[in-house]
Amino acid sequence: MSITVVGSIGLDTVETPSGKNEEGLGGAATYFSLAAANLTQVHLVAVVGEDFPEEHVTLLRSKKINLDGLERAAGKTFRWTGKYHDDVNERDTLDTQLNVFENFHPKLPDAARKAPYLFLGNIHPALQIEVLDQAEAQFVGLDTMNLWIDITPDDLKAVLKRVNCLIINDGEAKQLTGHINLRDAAKQIQSMGPAIVVIKKGEHGCMLFGADGEIFSIPALPLEEVIDPTGAGDSFAGGFMGHIVRNDAIDFDTLKQAVVYGSAMASFTCEAFGPDALSNVDKSKLDARHTEFRQLTSF
Amino acid sequence: MSITVVGSIGLDTVETPSGKNEEGLGGAATYFSLAAANLTQVHLVAVVGEDFPEEHVTLLRSKKINLDGLERAAGKTFRWTGKYHDDVNERDTLDTQLNVFENFHPKLPDAARKAPYLFLGNIHPALQIEVLDQAEAQFVGLDTMNLWIDITPDDLKAVLKRVNCLIINDGEAKQLTGHINLRDAAKQIQSMGPAIVVIKKGEHGCMLFGADGEIFSIPALPLEEVIDPTGAGDSFAGGFMGHIVRNDAIDFDTLKQAVVYGSAMASFTCEAFGPDALSNVDKSKLDARHTEFRQLTSF
Repeated sequence: MSITVVGSIGLDTVETPSGKNEEGLGGAATYFSLAAANLTQVHLVAVVGEDFPEEHVTLLRSKKINLDGLERAAGKTFRWTGKYHDDVNERDTLDTQLNVFENFHPKLPDAARKAPYLFLGNIHPALQIEVLDQAEAQFVGLDTMNLWIDITPDDLKAVLKRVNCLIINDGEAKQLTGHINLRDAAKQIQSMGPAIVVIKKGEHGCMLFGADGEIFSIPALPLEEVIDPTGAGDSFAGGFMGHIVRNDAIDFDTLKQAVVYGSAMASFTCEAFGPDALSNVDKSKLDARHTEFRQLTSF
Repeated sequence: MSITVVGSIGLDTVETPSGKNEEGLGGAATYFSLAAANLTQVHLVAVVGEDFPEEHVTLLRSKKINLDGLERAAGKTFRWTGKYHDDVNERDTLDTQLNVFENFHPKLPDAARKAPYLFLGNIHPALQIEVLDQAEAQFVGLDTMNLWIDITPDDLKAVLKRVNCLIINDGEAKQLTGHINLRDAAKQIQSMGPAIVVIKKGEHGCMLFGADGEIFSIPALPLEEVIDPTGAGDSFAGGFMGHIVRNDAIDFDTLKQAVVYGSAMASFTCEAFGPDALSNVDKSKLDARHTEFRQLTSF
């Protein structure tokens, strides 16, 4: 089993109450791949510029991530600069430079095209459609953001019709549906296409809505210190989809476990700048964190 | 086993997106008592005015709540008027009339004084101390609010030193300690006195911090519709303390179950105006809701 992910790779400059990380490895597809690679084979489809440090490629390759779809284009790599508030649930984007991402049109190599699972990272919905038109995946997960809900709602709706699972944060779910109640929001999203909806609530955990009205809810792990939450949502998606792929199943029990593994990956990411902590996850750390979630929530 | 609760009884006028409830039965001690009475014997110590409708006394008595400590004073009953936003997690207080509550000095009848458990509802910390000076309870739970953190911090700290458990919402925990991270906030509160800290997060559930560093976290039940959340926190406290009292135990497993019963009581309260839904709870409804929490959270 394997999964293809299409999304951004970038160099992030991030300031949090814990410090600053200049031009570190970032991007949704990076976090997704590093998380999912602990669980299954990942085909990464993305673009970087001529300035993209080779050490980052080496890191991704060391995780056995298939990089045949990693395009190196003329120009500079996508860059994002953000600053978190003292309450790290809040952040401001200070600068975004699309660079090579501006003219990116994902081209799926053969193996990526044939992967039975696909995750469409948060890129323009028109590009997500281009990927869907190439891919043969039987199960497709989707991420999106407030920007596309605002400016390309019709493209987004066209994508939603063609995916099986939407992973979205609570604010975006409310914005997309107009519903404040997350049960109502999830139900409406399901009527737009995806049978499975995951609503992420940051420090408050997340909720899973199944195709038959089932609901699962899990708190986030209360960390002693959140160093840098950048990429936590993408790491969640990687852990979530990765568990589905390794089990090749989407029954509700599998989906619940997928949420736990996603939450575990998100918690690792928050513990260091960039993907530093996530990159050091191994089976024993992951098992230990799964146990921590059980201890935190069981009664 | 039995528990004494001291707090407010009032007549609430509440407007929510679901409608309006004029001068309905309200007050923290009311919700606490109705919730706890499902689980144990409650001694209610509070004051009402001459205008307090007899039907409310009849309701409380029908739940076997001991009303020997219910004082009826000359003057009008405490009144509160509030309006909830479309997002019912937000509300504005439109009017507060203390009335007979202004000169209230709780007097504990003999049975209330001798009860092994005590809950100090959200009243002026100086009054909470008056109650502590009368009571013989071995285990004391406490509620407070932003107002007392602001204007009577020293009195509040004096109370905190003498209680075993603080039940507080997340905003107040941050305000009281200056910590944004709830683990840090709980640890600091524990250093101020109470070995057990429960931090309520409204629609996001709640967290329990044990004396030996244990943490338990549970989401709220995702209700189809929140009609009126007034009193949900007090109902939580009633269910939480009620379960502790009926088990006469404070080991962490009992405390975790207490959080589940508290969360169940809070969920009932949200389902109707005032204590209408809470008043109709019985053993089978409570057991069913406990099962719902298990289904929602187990993996």
